[in-house]
Amino acid sequence: MREPSVLVECVPNFSEGRRLAVIDEIDRSIREVPGVLRLDRHSDPDHNRTVITFAGAPEGVLEAAVRSAGEAARLIDLREHRGVHPRLGALDVLPFAPLEGTTIEECAALAVRAAREIWRRWRVPAYLYGAAALKPDRRDLAHVRRGQFEALREEALRDPERAPDIGGPGLHPAAGAVAAGARKVLVAFNVQLSTADVEIARRIARRIRESSGGLPCVKAMGVPLASRGMAQVSMNLTDYEITPPHRVFLAIREEAGRLGVSIADSEIVGLVPQVALGRAAWAELGLRTPPEDRILERRLDQERARLRDRMK
Amino acid sequence: MREPSVLVECVPNFSEGRRLAVIDEIDRSIREVPGVLRLDRHSDPDHNRTVITFAGAPEGVLEAAVRSAGEAARLIDLREHRGVHPRLGALDVLPFAPLEGTTIEECAALAVRAAREIWRRWRVPAYLYGAAALKPDRRDLAHVRRGQFEALREEALRDPERAPDIGGPGLHPAAGAVAAGARKVLVAFNVQLSTADVEIARRIARRIRESSGGLPCVKAMGVPLASRGMAQVSMNLTDYEITPPHRVFLAIREEAGRLGVSIADSEIVGLVPQVALGRAAWAELGLRTPPEDRILERRLDQERARLRDRMK
Repeated sequence: MREPSVLVECVPNFSEGRRLAVIDEIDRSIREVPGVLRLDRHSDPDHNRTVITFAGAPEGVLEAAVRSAGEAARLIDLREHRGVHPRLGALDVLPFAPLEGTTIEECAALAVRAAREIWRRWRVPAYLYGAAALKPDRRDLAHVRRGQFEALREEALRDPERAPDIGGPGLHPAAGAVAAGARKVLVAFNVQLSTADVEIARRIARRIRESSGGLPCVKAMGVPLASRGMAQVSMNLTDYEITPPHRVFLAIREEAGRLGVSIADSEIVGLVPQVALGRAAWAELGLRTPPEDRILERRLDQERARLRDRMK
Repeated sequence: MREPSVLVECVPNFSEGRRLAVIDEIDRSIREVPGVLRLDRHSDPDHNRTVITFAGAPEGVLEAAVRSAGEAARLIDLREHRGVHPRLGALDVLPFAPLEGTTIEECAALAVRAAREIWRRWRVPAYLYGAAALKPDRRDLAHVRRGQFEALREEALRDPERAPDIGGPGLHPAAGAVAAGARKVLVAFNVQLSTADVEIARRIARRIRESSGGLPCVKAMGVPLASRGMAQVSMNLTDYEITPPHRVFLAIREEAGRLGVSIADSEIVGLVPQVALGRAAWAELGLRTPPEDRILERRLDQERARLRDRMK
């Protein structure tokens, strides 16, 4: 088998982070598609949400995404779903990102195809966001999701400005709608505070996020983690080359100190490109040059590939 | 071409870090051996030393090591060599480390074969150290190198306790001797201080190194870096699983603070296994779980390999 020369990443977020049997069934619908590389799965009980990371050639990725949307619609009822993370669908967000040999524009076209197919097969409508957005204000996912499932299912029918881009106009009664889009690879990074006071997490989120004048390419919100008795600053770093995780971490530590709390710990949701973590090591160790090209395994892979190419 | 299923790393240290033409010729003698993966090269003018990292199947690695010893003996005259790093040979240290499908004992056997062949072809004798040592006190490289080239060339002839293990008894007049050995993959890590006072670097080195009761698996010395007007704590972390770079860094920062100086920056010499850097990122970002299995590229490689295996 030839390795795919085009590699797309897909990182669907499902509105279920507690019932393992449901998560397993959704996961299986992705894994069973031939050629799909299922890379990671992360469930959170407080967010009540699961993030699955997979990659592959465009056709396989498309099929896995559409099947997983069907399983989510079959197994999740948003009318009974509670969690601290905002959501509008059973399959809530469906982003495609270019990894190798493709562009964000091609990923946007793939998102549109996936949304059409999800509507055709499962009657779940879609909003297009990010690089796939048809309306400028829908580039921003937070704008699309404003009011969440509960508000949107009414507004979509009343207000054409709020209707889905594909399918609809009403949402699916149980599964809501999908936000399908294209974007660069991002880092989902959460920092837990030594306090259960969610107001402090919200104040920190407002200080560090781009939309309120903070760090560029940082989206942030404060949420309570009841299961851990902590408040969390939950973030997407939409361009880790511009704002890497360690810079955000230091900014949060500073803000937290000012508010009299400290950082308990942190987590990466899903996967992180080596270069983004390398930057963190760089900061920690005071390295004069970035450590990415100092990594043994990476140089081995590069040289083996070069050798294989020369032998062809 | 099949990829080698046995992979040995070799990290020779040559006593030349200034004359680019000499370094290039030595480097070429390694690169020209078929199948050898030449991974990295690092020269330092103050140490007057070059570290080359390469890997491959045992036979290729052996041949490259022996050829590079010949070039070093042809091009470097230790009688004219000055540098802040102790040395006993033109090719000073020749360590072999197991990467894949091999053991440290097999690497020790390879070191002995390399030493024999270097004596046979170039008449440069060898001391065996680390896991290849024949005498217990020669396990420690610092013990072997005590007094350096200048003292050893006299003592080797006078005192059988100081004679080479292979060849000799006298050293090569210009190229000295090679310390050939086997060890685990290590991390060479240097920290530069905001002072030119080498005595402070030496005090810090004594505080943190294992031999004077400091951190386990840390070898350290203080040296002056005239070219940068700084003092350096120069280290080998012989087991980064036990003492990772960030722990050493924090210990140095604390000692330096106590002595009224700060850290200017740091550097990795050669390559570093992903896991050792991952630990640093972990510390920096307060991650709850180690980030090694969160690295996108790594998971991709793993899944692709799994897929290939299934297709066989």
